[in-house]
Amino acid sequence: MRLLKVDTPEKIKEKMVRYFSQMNVGFEDIHISNSLNRYIYEDIISPINLPYYRRSTVDGYAVISKDTYGVSESIPVFLNIIGNVNMGEKTDIKLINDCAIYVPTGGMVPDGADAMVMIEYTEKLDDETIAVNSPATKNANIIQIGEDIQKDTVVLKKGRKIKPQDIGALSALGISKIRVFRKPKVTIISTGDELISPEEKIKDGQIRDINSYTIGALTTEYGGEVIKKYIINDDYEKLRKTVADSIVESELIVISGGSSVGIKDVTAKILDDFGDPGVFVHGAAVKPGKPTIISYAKDTAMIGLPGHPASAAVIYRIFGKITFEILLNKHKQIESTIEGVCMSSIHAAPGRETYQMVKIFKKEDQYFAEPIFAKSAAISLLTQSEGYIKIGINEEGINKGQKVKIYLLNN
Amino acid sequence: MRLLKVDTPEKIKEKMVRYFSQMNVGFEDIHISNSLNRYIYEDIISPINLPYYRRSTVDGYAVISKDTYGVSESIPVFLNIIGNVNMGEKTDIKLINDCAIYVPTGGMVPDGADAMVMIEYTEKLDDETIAVNSPATKNANIIQIGEDIQKDTVVLKKGRKIKPQDIGALSALGISKIRVFRKPKVTIISTGDELISPEEKIKDGQIRDINSYTIGALTTEYGGEVIKKYIINDDYEKLRKTVADSIVESELIVISGGSSVGIKDVTAKILDDFGDPGVFVHGAAVKPGKPTIISYAKDTAMIGLPGHPASAAVIYRIFGKITFEILLNKHKQIESTIEGVCMSSIHAAPGRETYQMVKIFKKEDQYFAEPIFAKSAAISLLTQSEGYIKIGINEEGINKGQKVKIYLLNN
Repeated sequence: MRLLKVDTPEKIKEKMVRYFSQMNVGFEDIHISNSLNRYIYEDIISPINLPYYRRSTVDGYAVISKDTYGVSESIPVFLNIIGNVNMGEKTDIKLINDCAIYVPTGGMVPDGADAMVMIEYTEKLDDETIAVNSPATKNANIIQIGEDIQKDTVVLKKGRKIKPQDIGALSALGISKIRVFRKPKVTIISTGDELISPEEKIKDGQIRDINSYTIGALTTEYGGEVIKKYIINDDYEKLRKTVADSIVESELIVISGGSSVGIKDVTAKILDDFGDPGVFVHGAAVKPGKPTIISYAKDTAMIGLPGHPASAAVIYRIFGKITFEILLNKHKQIESTIEGVCMSSIHAAPGRETYQMVKIFKKEDQYFAEPIFAKSAAISLLTQSEGYIKIGINEEGINKGQKVKIYLLNN
Repeated sequence: MRLLKVDTPEKIKEKMVRYFSQMNVGFEDIHISNSLNRYIYEDIISPINLPYYRRSTVDGYAVISKDTYGVSESIPVFLNIIGNVNMGEKTDIKLINDCAIYVPTGGMVPDGADAMVMIEYTEKLDDETIAVNSPATKNANIIQIGEDIQKDTVVLKKGRKIKPQDIGALSALGISKIRVFRKPKVTIISTGDELISPEEKIKDGQIRDINSYTIGALTTEYGGEVIKKYIINDDYEKLRKTVADSIVESELIVISGGSSVGIKDVTAKILDDFGDPGVFVHGAAVKPGKPTIISYAKDTAMIGLPGHPASAAVIYRIFGKITFEILLNKHKQIESTIEGVCMSSIHAAPGRETYQMVKIFKKEDQYFAEPIFAKSAAISLLTQSEGYIKIGINEEGINKGQKVKIYLLNN
């Protein structure tokens, strides 16, 4: 196997985009009621103008604006009421000069009218007559056809993660079914002689598989679907065969390394064996979790993670997330961060991006980040972490009391 | 009906907690693989110590620390290798003085040993002998039993929204099934003579129901389950009967008002008719969406929203969210906000909290918030919004160029 030098996260992302964007996960058509948090497959074009009729923004009277020019409280104009528009109904009456038609908020402004007068500026004299005591300018209080959304324009862009308000908007346009990206299929493999599932009875010295559960949940969050999970002993042939089987039906295979000496190299060797380009990242300038492997072959993305649960989660939060961003054509999304004061000094790892997990406190409108320093295999690190601080490759460490940007984990 | 004065959001929350916390939505037991984003029903207590054996944090040799006191590169100590611990296995050999046992990272430290010496500080002389050239302090490189998580301590608290890393931690503890809050059942009713569903063929003047889709998706996001959706005409008796039927099987009924004059009062009257305390909020000091109704009767929470889609969504994002926080006993969560520069002035509504929807841009590491000012019935407002700015009751408006906190909508 050729030697690859340790890459920066930026360089890695560049390579991932180059290879992974060759994949096409395909689409499915679903009802909007089930579309929350799915990703749009192709631009959605509005089939109609919205509103599709001239809509009143007030309760009042449809008028011809010229009829009201120059009126005031002392010199009102008198108009004949010739009709009434009901909500949700069309009127066939056409407005003519010196007349008015009642229209409620949201109602359809009748033909002939070119302004709405608020009811507050009118006085009803009898069933057939109103006095208007304030002039209406042309198009006052009317939303024009297509003013909100124009027919044939893009409403939601390809790659957008569907939000609650989008579903409402689609309904407004009469679109009940949409085309979304199929969920990328993911196989997760945990390797290690010592691993057992949470259901198995434990024997002394064994430990429970953590990574496939954490990685599985993150996969769901990023928009993927876990189709299979395996725990494989440190057995070269068995691991090779499992990858060979999984490559047929998965868009992404994630392997987290066991803690046995040498297993990392075995993983790299296996992943490199399925065709070009094979392993294109072997080591990332990221702390924690240097032993990162990324490969591409046979239309399948493959990621090798460190075995340590906290490191595996951090690496997957970076490179797993990027993989889904590429596969689902996600728009650049806004990262959720808060500003806070760092409560201890953090040493940066020179030449690597440092990700330091923190707990977050709030005190008098000020956030505080308390770094969680734990020994190597801490599980508690996973649950106590509420966010992380990122220290750039060329940045020095962080001093106690320094203001920092905290990335929130629950996003 | 008694008259209620317009309440501040704070006061409203107080009342909601008082009434809604009487409800108990119950629980269900599920597998951890399906537990992402569910809410924990009761404190989860660790059934074991983690690690449950003394674990080595290095590849090296288990020793008795006293045997290494005073050693150095020039005066090493020689120890007999009497065994080898494999990953995932227990060793029955007990370490005695002047001896050493090989243990890999993560492996079980044998009885008798009280320190681990890193392999880098040893030299293997033959199959049976190593030289140790650096002293090991007592407990060096060993994680003690329960040091990570102690048996019988709380691992995850009641009300916690389950995160990916929590699922990994539960697996580590051998917990494969957990008890979570049942999803509160929600009925959504849209009222208005003009409303039709997105599937129906539209007739002039009608508009599509938006609210039940937006509110439905938000309900899913907040952890609820939409069990039924209705579109009801402005028909007092029909609305009353629908609420009466829904109250039996729902924990929350959400009604969004039609735009017809008078329907809001009808909704309040109906919701007040099912027993004590009935309607306890009638008007919220919030912009947009003053006509907010909140009621409680027969173990059911009821919320009346304005008919206008953008307002309905804002109000539900405040009071709907609070409802689920109470029902699911959620911990106070960190709000996701970013700091940005406001690109236009925003006028505050005196005596009301103002929620102004904004688009968000990023330029050279600086976020900018562009307020979206749209006419009353804008649907585009819903999809273009990426966040909002909140102006407190006693705060003045915001000036162009002012630094503001932007609340992100996708959270």
